[in-house]
Amino acid sequence: MSNVIETRLESMGITLPVPAAPVANYVPFVATGDMLFISGQLPIGPEGMVKGRLGATLTAEEGAAAARFCAINLIAQAKIALGGDLGRVKRLVKLVAFVACTDDFTEQPKVVNGASDLFVEVFGDAGRHARSAVGTNALPLGAAVEIEAIFEIA
Amino acid sequence: MSNVIETRLESMGITLPVPAAPVANYVPFVATGDMLFISGQLPIGPEGMVKGRLGATLTAEEGAAAARFCAINLIAQAKIALGGDLGRVKRLVKLVAFVACTDDFTEQPKVVNGASDLFVEVFGDAGRHARSAVGTNALPLGAAVEIEAIFEIA
Amino acid sequence: MSNVIETRLESMGITLPVPAAPVANYVPFVATGDMLFISGQLPIGPEGMVKGRLGATLTAEEGAAAARFCAINLIAQAKIALGGDLGRVKRLVKLVAFVACTDDFTEQPKVVNGASDLFVEVFGDAGRHARSAVGTNALPLGAAVEIEAIFEIA
Repeated sequence: MSNVIETRLESMGITLPVPAAPVANYVPFVATGDMLFISGQLPIGPEGMVKGRLGATLTAEEGAAAARFCAINLIAQAKIALGGDLGRVKRLVKLVAFVACTDDFTEQPKVVNGASDLFVEVFGDAGRHARSAVGTNALPLGAAVEIEAIFEIA
Repeated sequence: MSNVIETRLESMGITLPVPAAPVANYVPFVATGDMLFISGQLPIGPEGMVKGRLGATLTAEEGAAAARFCAINLIAQAKIALGGDLGRVKRLVKLVAFVACTDDFTEQPKVVNGASDLFVEVFGDAGRHARSAVGTNALPLGAAVEIEAIFEIA
Repeated sequence: MSNVIETRLESMGITLPVPAAPVANYVPFVATGDMLFISGQLPIGPEGMVKGRLGATLTAEEGAAAARFCAINLIAQAKIALGGDLGRVKRLVKLVAFVACTDDFTEQPKVVNGASDLFVEVFGDAGRHARSAVGTNALPLGAAVEIEAIFEIA
């Protein structure tokens, strides 16, 4: 299955980044039993981090693109956690997604769909997950979106 | 025990709604092992969704009523996840509750008690749970409260 | 190992507080299987609770000190949950940290490091954890930081 996932990522034109290690006393992921917890990932893409606030400097579409970068970074971390073998992902269990936004922005779900869609595109039904999507007034380094994940692994 | 729970809900005058399926690539719940993760639920009641912000357009009491609707929707999702048998709930493990509010609102716990109280009323001691209650500047569709849950199931 | 942890706390000059029980229908912790979920803890220290907002009334250093109090309170709750034996902590799995802040504050990670550093100082490598650090416009009782935790326990 690993090859299936890798092939799918390739066909989607996605190259998993080599994520930078946190420069602090926490780690990007912890596996316990068959659960893999991934730290909140920021929307860092090939051209840097997507900064800004939904409802002010970013449209919902731009927010969805940012959420997609968070998802790619979550997958990149999962790959490292699983020794390079994404075939060990049994399913994505849950996402919690925080969207930096103005007080009157209400389209957080549309933004977070950028991540949810990517997971289903990559993992198929195993990518369907429970999730919470909420707004926030501010995220680290001015990021537009932050998403954490729990995977079930083999 | 299923009948006990159903009878209690009935005696409380609560009819579990048939929740709408998410219109996106996520699902309302994921069970893994004996853990059931339920997606963040909004305060949709018989008369629609409770919208607004605590500290501005809603009182703490109205917020607690909204949190209670979130709890009812969490139970409704759990019932579907468990094939209709709420007797399979071993306990509620944890809630994370987000309260849409003004910057100076500080009564998030009082709001979230609307959900916590409902769970104990319905499930007894098995309804006692760990929780986090926080504020946020904005929630999906203008909702006043969003709550996610983890149940332990048999 | 319990004595090791206790000795380390002592050498750091940390006396674990006796946390107040929640005055509501929730509990400070729930253990299920080998997972221990601790409710969101506020930055209550020997001189009361650290209130305020980062970016306005508190510096990042003061925020980190507040996050450290949250961590101490999480450890105090874990000790009670484990019948007094912190040696039963196998590892800290995950933190979710909410930092009350202004809309333009971006140093949430620096604030939350106050908690992450404490955990590693106390538990060594077993204290390294996955985490999410986000901002919020308001927390219960005006708290500056709220942090919840999941531990793996023996």
